Amino acid sequence: MVPYITRHIPTYDLLGEENLLKIEHAADTILGEIGIEFHDDPETVQLFRQAGAQVSVVTENAWNIKFEPGMIREILKTAPPHFTQHARNPAKSVKIGGNAMVFSPSYGSPFIIDMNQGRRYATLADFENLIKLAQASPWLHHSGGTICEPTDIPVNKRHLDMIYAHMRYSDRAFLGSITAPERAADSIEMCRILFGTDFVSEHCVVMGNFNSTSPLIWDGNSTRGIRNYAEAGQGSILLPFLLGGAVSPVTMPGAVAQSLAESMAGCALTQLVRPGAPAILASFLSSTSLRSGSPSFGTPEPALGSLIMGQLARRLNLPLRCAGNFSTSKLADAQAMTQGMMSMMSAVQCGANFIMHSAGFLDSLLSMSYEKFMLDTDLCAALHTYLKGFEVDDDSLGLDALREGGPGKHMFGTAHTLAHYQTAYWESSLNDDQPYESWHEQGQEDAMQRANHRWKTTLQDYQAPSLDESTDEALKEFINRRKATMDDTWY
Amino acid sequence: MVPYITRHIPTYDLLGEENLLKIEHAADTILGEIGIEFHDDPETVQLFRQAGAQVSVVTENAWNIKFEPGMIREILKTAPPHFTQHARNPAKSVKIGGNAMVFSPSYGSPFIIDMNQGRRYATLADFENLIKLAQASPWLHHSGGTICEPTDIPVNKRHLDMIYAHMRYSDRAFLGSITAPERAADSIEMCRILFGTDFVSEHCVVMGNFNSTSPLIWDGNSTRGIRNYAEAGQGSILLPFLLGGAVSPVTMPGAVAQSLAESMAGCALTQLVRPGAPAILASFLSSTSLRSGSPSFGTPEPALGSLIMGQLARRLNLPLRCAGNFSTSKLADAQAMTQGMMSMMSAVQCGANFIMHSAGFLDSLLSMSYEKFMLDTDLCAALHTYLKGFEVDDDSLGLDALREGGPGKHMFGTAHTLAHYQTAYWESSLNDDQPYESWHEQGQEDAMQRANHRWKTTLQDYQAPSLDESTDEALKEFINRRKATMDDTWY
Repeated sequence: MVPYITRHIPTYDLLGEENLLKIEHAADTILGEIGIEFHDDPETVQLFRQAGAQVSVVTENAWNIKFEPGMIREILKTAPPHFTQHARNPAKSVKIGGNAMVFSPSYGSPFIIDMNQGRRYATLADFENLIKLAQASPWLHHSGGTICEPTDIPVNKRHLDMIYAHMRYSDRAFLGSITAPERAADSIEMCRILFGTDFVSEHCVVMGNFNSTSPLIWDGNSTRGIRNYAEAGQGSILLPFLLGGAVSPVTMPGAVAQSLAESMAGCALTQLVRPGAPAILASFLSSTSLRSGSPSFGTPEPALGSLIMGQLARRLNLPLRCAGNFSTSKLADAQAMTQGMMSMMSAVQCGANFIMHSAGFLDSLLSMSYEKFMLDTDLCAALHTYLKGFEVDDDSLGLDALREGGPGKHMFGTAHTLAHYQTAYWESSLNDDQPYESWHEQGQEDAMQRANHRWKTTLQDYQAPSLDESTDEALKEFINRRKATMDDTWY
Repeated sequence: MVPYITRHIPTYDLLGEENLLKIEHAADTILGEIGIEFHDDPETVQLFRQAGAQVSVVTENAWNIKFEPGMIREILKTAPPHFTQHARNPAKSVKIGGNAMVFSPSYGSPFIIDMNQGRRYATLADFENLIKLAQASPWLHHSGGTICEPTDIPVNKRHLDMIYAHMRYSDRAFLGSITAPERAADSIEMCRILFGTDFVSEHCVVMGNFNSTSPLIWDGNSTRGIRNYAEAGQGSILLPFLLGGAVSPVTMPGAVAQSLAESMAGCALTQLVRPGAPAILASFLSSTSLRSGSPSFGTPEPALGSLIMGQLARRLNLPLRCAGNFSTSKLADAQAMTQGMMSMMSAVQCGANFIMHSAGFLDSLLSMSYEKFMLDTDLCAALHTYLKGFEVDDDSLGLDALREGGPGKHMFGTAHTLAHYQTAYWESSLNDDQPYESWHEQGQEDAMQRANHRWKTTLQDYQAPSLDESTDEALKEFINRRKATMDDTWY
């Protein structure tokens, strides 16, 4: 069990220098010629104006900002190439950037899907269950954020219960709220209770995942949240969610250029607020199904686009959030994993540092699936081995095994086999590798059925990490006090 | 529809020069110090002796042959880096080697699995069905060989019916029989009827897939078959099937070195028989499940091993057969595709030229699955797009779409979107990308169920390619004559 993965294999680089320059040039053209609009946040506009960007008024609450080529890159020079997000259990703090990779659960689904009840709105009980399942998996590294939407809790209060669940049922790092600036502020305040005010002022303990409003808008809700996190020295993920042909060019190189431009502008804001604040370049690429008109996921074009994003992030020397285990399927079937693998392999091969949506994603992100969650964490386990690569040395070349046996001799009993067989191969904890006959006698279950049993037994066996009682009380007191200041709102 | 894929994206190279040299050195050590045993084929031994190899007698019918470092590489210099295997429909001839990639169905399963009948022994009717399904898919390029074992036909006669089915129900290239030298000869003889004797003497029209008897043995059944194919100028695939810890070192770098050594020795034999004969370096890597003691497939170590094999084949300047869509699952579920993707992505990313087992593989190769066959061919479709990569140019960067729309404007109606939306994204023909509600109303089918419908309708719609009547008669006459010379044997 490791707190995060250290990638020991090379990245899969798709494009050569010339084509990367073309994409970077296109991003610069977007930033310099078309510009990014900023809405409802004059302070952000003022920060960019002071930095030398060219601001023009679009409406009373909207400004178009253009950046001379190279200006954003210059601003980004203060952003850390890697940083640590601290967990309340120090052994689980994660490095983000460089060769480090962090797997984090899926984020943002309003629905839950499981084999027993089908699809239904997610509740706080589901939220807590999924935090527990994530905590129980040695193959995730992060507790995530809105692992599902607890729709039974008022919209303006649920962030408090969500943050509490991360703090109480997990001892890993997690994401704070970003749906409104005051919720971002609450997230950071609760971290001050958990970690201590002094610690928080000096360390990154929480991150927000902020979406741009593509194409080419950062709205005030996001930018004010970004400023909150950056002022507090906390981390931001700056994410354009691009549905190709709808909010980005329908051709992937254009979507990648736009993704780079939008995310760079968001990252730059963090540096203007507080140079050195942790910022993560981010990209979420998708395609569109002609037949259904719906977004599609796990297709080859976004997988290749992610490989390019990896190259671009390294050239910028910024950590990257990219891709994940995406699917349009409505259950944890063959389609779900074909799409999920297409997408997830590109995430790890592109060298992404923070891989959101590593587990549970179904139904085009509308649903979090208990069964797929378990299958995906098993894949995450395999990817730990994949990313380790091989040491090529006398021991791993194992010529002694061949010498001891020789032509035609099985190697079960050689010294080399005996020394290595227990660690030589990764083994799934969910797959059925048995002969057909054994599988048949044992009830012919498919992977989804095994995952169904597994999440139930995992919840039964779950043990909460200890939490200091006075801290727990202080968190609850804060939550009650904040809730008492607000009437419930449901949208 | 293309006769084969031309790979336009880079390969995924795992190891640097130093580690590649270590593996090559280990292979040379195997060949030079431990040696390869050759059984029951004095002519092959004589060919190697004449070439300067060091032969020592092991038993009356077994010889150990050692090769000085560099000797095999020298012999292999006459092997073509790429060649064409001709199909009876010239538009479907395949290039093998270089940047060409050929997807071929799974090979060798004695059982059939389908959703309706579960697992049962395969028959000639299944064999014909699967040839038809392969022929009907635009995403495979080759008809394969023993697509399943027609167990209702006597062992000594079934090769005749299998070759006939390939010739009659497909117009693509195919693999001939290798189970006995006289069956290899029959395969080539039937090709002479189909293509004409003169054409066959000048062109590669059939290939045999020959297995070594790992560790480090080539038996006479294989080597005599290899000699038959090579003498006729036909192609050979020289394949070690390595179950790690059983017949190869349990550590992957050692298995790769052994795979290289065994396959190179097989390739060298083809060149001694007929310099310039088409030969394909090959590798089939697997792992072992500790829990069940069974072979396991679709695990990360063999996936990485395949990436290394790709690098080694390019350094040898030989075409490569490697990996495929492997699984231990007993049905076309999430496990099947997670494992299959892990393995298949490495096949395409390592630059393999002939990808056997591209469709239908289940149950550790014991079973061919109708449903998985359909799901796999849909993945093959996606991989056509993946391997195409992107042109990065003004058109694909699509800045005009952003200029026409601008910040906050959807791009559905831009000239760029309208010009590209029909071709911008690959679309699955089997996945369900619809919203949950539509999927739910339409019966909540999973991918396996959709695949079940699809193989049945595909068989209904199948149309046989035309075949000259006199050729057809001549083939049948040959088969009847050959069958009449033999009593049935069943093992």
